[in-house]
Amino acid sequence: MLVVMRHDASSDEIQGVVRAIEAMGYRARPMPGAQRTTVGLVGNDGRVEEGRLVGLDGVLRVIHVSQPYKQVSREWCPEDTVVELDNGARIGGEDVVIMAGPCAVESREQILESARRVAATGATVLRGGAFKPRTSPYSFQGLGEEGLQLLAEARDETGLAVVTEAIDSEGVALVAEYADIIQIGARNMQNYSLLRAAGRAGRPVLLKRGMSATIKELLLAAEYIVAEGEPRVILCERGVRNFDTHARNLFDLTAVVTVKELSHLPIIADPSHGTGARSKVGPMARASVAAGADGLIVEVHPDPTTAASDGAQSLTPDQFDELMTEVEQIARSLGRGVAQPAAVALSG
Amino acid sequence: MLVVMRHDASSDEIQGVVRAIEAMGYRARPMPGAQRTTVGLVGNDGRVEEGRLVGLDGVLRVIHVSQPYKQVSREWCPEDTVVELDNGARIGGEDVVIMAGPCAVESREQILESARRVAATGATVLRGGAFKPRTSPYSFQGLGEEGLQLLAEARDETGLAVVTEAIDSEGVALVAEYADIIQIGARNMQNYSLLRAAGRAGRPVLLKRGMSATIKELLLAAEYIVAEGEPRVILCERGVRNFDTHARNLFDLTAVVTVKELSHLPIIADPSHGTGARSKVGPMARASVAAGADGLIVEVHPDPTTAASDGAQSLTPDQFDELMTEVEQIARSLGRGVAQPAAVALSG
Amino acid sequence: MLVVMRHDASSDEIQGVVRAIEAMGYRARPMPGAQRTTVGLVGNDGRVEEGRLVGLDGVLRVIHVSQPYKQVSREWCPEDTVVELDNGARIGGEDVVIMAGPCAVESREQILESARRVAATGATVLRGGAFKPRTSPYSFQGLGEEGLQLLAEARDETGLAVVTEAIDSEGVALVAEYADIIQIGARNMQNYSLLRAAGRAGRPVLLKRGMSATIKELLLAAEYIVAEGEPRVILCERGVRNFDTHARNLFDLTAVVTVKELSHLPIIADPSHGTGARSKVGPMARASVAAGADGLIVEVHPDPTTAASDGAQSLTPDQFDELMTEVEQIARSLGRGVAQPAAVALSG
Amino acid sequence: MLVVMRHDASSDEIQGVVRAIEAMGYRARPMPGAQRTTVGLVGNDGRVEEGRLVGLDGVLRVIHVSQPYKQVSREWCPEDTVVELDNGARIGGEDVVIMAGPCAVESREQILESARRVAATGATVLRGGAFKPRTSPYSFQGLGEEGLQLLAEARDETGLAVVTEAIDSEGVALVAEYADIIQIGARNMQNYSLLRAAGRAGRPVLLKRGMSATIKELLLAAEYIVAEGEPRVILCERGVRNFDTHARNLFDLTAVVTVKELSHLPIIADPSHGTGARSKVGPMARASVAAGADGLIVEVHPDPTTAASDGAQSLTPDQFDELMTEVEQIARSLGRGVAQPAAVALSG
Repeated sequence: MLVVMRHDASSDEIQGVVRAIEAMGYRARPMPGAQRTTVGLVGNDGRVEEGRLVGLDGVLRVIHVSQPYKQVSREWCPEDTVVELDNGARIGGEDVVIMAGPCAVESREQILESARRVAATGATVLRGGAFKPRTSPYSFQGLGEEGLQLLAEARDETGLAVVTEAIDSEGVALVAEYADIIQIGARNMQNYSLLRAAGRAGRPVLLKRGMSATIKELLLAAEYIVAEGEPRVILCERGVRNFDTHARNLFDLTAVVTVKELSHLPIIADPSHGTGARSKVGPMARASVAAGADGLIVEVHPDPTTAASDGAQSLTPDQFDELMTEVEQIARSLGRGVAQPAAVALSG
Repeated sequence: MLVVMRHDASSDEIQGVVRAIEAMGYRARPMPGAQRTTVGLVGNDGRVEEGRLVGLDGVLRVIHVSQPYKQVSREWCPEDTVVELDNGARIGGEDVVIMAGPCAVESREQILESARRVAATGATVLRGGAFKPRTSPYSFQGLGEEGLQLLAEARDETGLAVVTEAIDSEGVALVAEYADIIQIGARNMQNYSLLRAAGRAGRPVLLKRGMSATIKELLLAAEYIVAEGEPRVILCERGVRNFDTHARNLFDLTAVVTVKELSHLPIIADPSHGTGARSKVGPMARASVAAGADGLIVEVHPDPTTAASDGAQSLTPDQFDELMTEVEQIARSLGRGVAQPAAVALSG
Repeated sequence: MLVVMRHDASSDEIQGVVRAIEAMGYRARPMPGAQRTTVGLVGNDGRVEEGRLVGLDGVLRVIHVSQPYKQVSREWCPEDTVVELDNGARIGGEDVVIMAGPCAVESREQILESARRVAATGATVLRGGAFKPRTSPYSFQGLGEEGLQLLAEARDETGLAVVTEAIDSEGVALVAEYADIIQIGARNMQNYSLLRAAGRAGRPVLLKRGMSATIKELLLAAEYIVAEGEPRVILCERGVRNFDTHARNLFDLTAVVTVKELSHLPIIADPSHGTGARSKVGPMARASVAAGADGLIVEVHPDPTTAASDGAQSLTPDQFDELMTEVEQIARSLGRGVAQPAAVALSG
Repeated sequence: MLVVMRHDASSDEIQGVVRAIEAMGYRARPMPGAQRTTVGLVGNDGRVEEGRLVGLDGVLRVIHVSQPYKQVSREWCPEDTVVELDNGARIGGEDVVIMAGPCAVESREQILESARRVAATGATVLRGGAFKPRTSPYSFQGLGEEGLQLLAEARDETGLAVVTEAIDSEGVALVAEYADIIQIGARNMQNYSLLRAAGRAGRPVLLKRGMSATIKELLLAAEYIVAEGEPRVILCERGVRNFDTHARNLFDLTAVVTVKELSHLPIIADPSHGTGARSKVGPMARASVAAGADGLIVEVHPDPTTAASDGAQSLTPDQFDELMTEVEQIARSLGRGVAQPAAVALSG
């Protein structure tokens, strides 16, 4: 951490900063420059409260040299983390993993039909919400535990693993009972009680980037989970807030590359929420794989025009099939494959 | 709701939209125009899933004419809501209400000293966090229930009402036991489980705008609380995410005016989080009152350089005193006053 | 255009809107709904000033049903525009066109060396700035006309076409004399005097999206050029402003898909400015082609560590070679190719 | 400038950075830390190309300690700049200066009527566009030189000074002939050819903040003008791009405070463009003065419902009168006044 002094800071003010740093238990190193003095704080363990320094007399601003996250950083662990599921799918490994299914579980027929269709052409994980966080209190909120049971039934039949969202601590326990992966949604990325509960549930966690979260905040949210003892965290880019409304969100694919540089955790991409429109899902799914994402999570519905939520961005099963062919070609051109459903069925 | 057809939509496609609307139980009204046809959906009760229409053949886009929130809207209730506290403070009434105190409760001395100082020059509500949602898992997380007890002690001594944050459902019950107002923080604005719990706790709720929440989303979050039976919701502007880093957040004071137009709920402003820097709190507190805010929530710490959090944006008690003088003058020039601590002490 | 009335608008207020629309020469069509009345404006030719309606008594808001751009829209012309250059390169056609070269022309050796290297492995157009718009008045501002002469010399030797930026009306004439494509930079996307001059210069125009331009504004800027008589406009996505600083800009690849839906103009992608970091250029270049971009514009410098500008985001020639191999594979997996330099040399 | 090395950077890589800095003519100072080494660059004169360092082996990132602007910075000149006009108005002095008038000059009657009305209740400067940069090529583009002549006539009659926009170099000469202040609009804030021309025209310049410009970029744009020899630059906050559409722009009043801290130049606020809606102009004009703005620029039209542009955000003359009363009270509560039209008339 570096404390930049105003150009007209007095030597008393500089000494004040030195004393404040030492009082916090660190070493201070003043560095006079051509225009101003900078005071380095040496020995920062990530717990320094910059507020104690920013407000001191003569201080212009404080600059962070180190990142505040630790265990999720690539500097901490240079090897890629690979999250292995019971059905054999390996997220963060060589092959691209496809998660697909409807936005919400609506009925037994709907989720079974969805599972069969996506399993047939490339998915290894089934998605589907049982607890739905909706912007309006008057929108469909999900089937709850019944939805979880239907997901488990679909898994038993198809060999797909299951990922589904938990929206509160009680829900985490329930989801952990039925699902292979606990999803934390974008709106809850900084719901720290929920992150802690998820980190203690004994299941891999899929952590979606918040609507206006920086990559640093995403990694710190992951750090909450890892700090509770769960190292199997999968990150997910799903678009951020933006001034333009040409798409529902601004899908930030560069984040995939940035996360790979800063962290050893796997990262997948969600082109359905990232774009919000069926016609854009295919091109951006292809782009995600080309950018290096470890997987995709895609909304597919047997009949999008009757979907209880997100119908506008759901693919039909036929569109999904077509997309899988394209995705496989892109993956191959980069020396990767798509995790195979056949292998899944065998191991399931 | 209006369904805008592509300019080359066939009459079959237009009929398809009409049938889909009728199948959902509403009436359809096609309106041919110079360039394209628009189909109006009549009878919308706020539960229409636009996804069912967006994806139909020939549809260009869907436009919402009505807002999805109801009970919080000014159309629903033209009269301003005034939230009255036990100590007599009335938020949303003629006078501007000042909430002040440290970011976090750190010790008995710190919170009592803060309470005495802010009560002496204009505050009627004491702020202070007992449960702190921190971006890093390694930062100070608050004193928990002990902090709540200290806040209650400060209330007993000074007559100030108490506002403090709850970060999960269990916390809501605890906070409701000790505090006059339950605060929902920005990171939890769309934590719907928490909103529901807060709406059932029997206390007024201070709802802070999320970091990238639109006004519509803020009002829908308030609707969650009101829908649970709690009409006493106070909104709070505290700055949003932005491309520039000259301030911690972009303090959106126009939101105060917009909320007043769209909703009957009171809205206060938080210039401490809105700017993130002590030197900017005073000017923006004045601006908030000039823009029409019903109150302010300001961070004040007996010694900001030792604060466990947010020291850089906390005022000293002397700076707070000076600000109160200015704020009172601004309020008077608009025909308002500042809610008086004297009156509070009497009723407390 | 639709004028949405307040729910309590009187019939006098509704009549006022009808009269205002008729006074502007259009037809008005009031549509009473369950909650409120909407008044349609029929016959809108794109010149309606909404300000005349927004401020009328009883009006809640005005909704635009049609887009304000015309000649650049796909509704106006369903066929893709293909921009053909003298050296045979066709932008917007089947093959992906690669534009590459240094940020700025710095010297004869530098630009010739760059041209030879990029021509050898896939580029058909040479980029390089002679007039540089720099954020600071103290930064290198380009070689001016001498730079243009060096670009022309590089074209003569390699057969590459030349694209370079003009920053004012005088510059447009000069650039048109030497270059095959006139570039309008992001900072000048709404410099309408410059757009008009470019539209009259008789050369294809490469129009870069502004730092916070919506797609609608980008298309309207293109409309300025086309309205002056120049139909050969190539759009370019190069990243937009964002709250996160993990990359220089937020590269909005979904814009490529959106532009293809709304317009017949070709669109290329600039992963160098879109990401700002060498390590991210390759993955995002691949992603751009996978998303459907008609071409790439990439910064390549013989020795990035000595570059006068943008060194941090410039590829070395070796990195460019490697990227071209990957890009070609991605293009092939989508049934496209990369426009061949060999063909260029023959036609050059 | 500080070059932060990766935690695993070798001593060869650190030496590489040292040599690169020395080769650029500066001194290098390596500072080993607990986690990583940082290399300070001493003697930075604001011309260092960071790109030469960012790309070197072992470099994590480069941090700027100093700001790149000079002459406009408060460190360069601690005294406030006061821009004095021929009619005696002093912008940046004790009194708040009001600029008011229509968006565009539409006719002789309209501009004279506007001038008389705003002069009568508090304005000292008349605004009105003769050259209008419009997003669509099909919108009204202004009266050109005829508009300038009408503005001059209004000045002669009322004693108001005149501010009007120039949109290209030719326009600058024309505007300088007729107006007291040359306005550079938001879309042209980084049109450097235009900034240079304005800096040589011998008139004070009103520089509006770009739609997504940081404060640093605003100050660098001002530096372009000052570097040409014109020290009389007035900055203007007019709202920035944002994800919410509740207002036309996000009016960033904190920028007023930030600019005052970083620069000695005066800054005024434009609540008309900052909010885009008549009902919001009054509250935000009051807030602007409360935040410390040196003046306001407000759109006023004799009959907003017939305005050729910006009618929705224009005040009627009666609304302007009412606002002036409020603004004066706010200014007085802060110990300032409103520059008096009477004084203007005498000096005019």
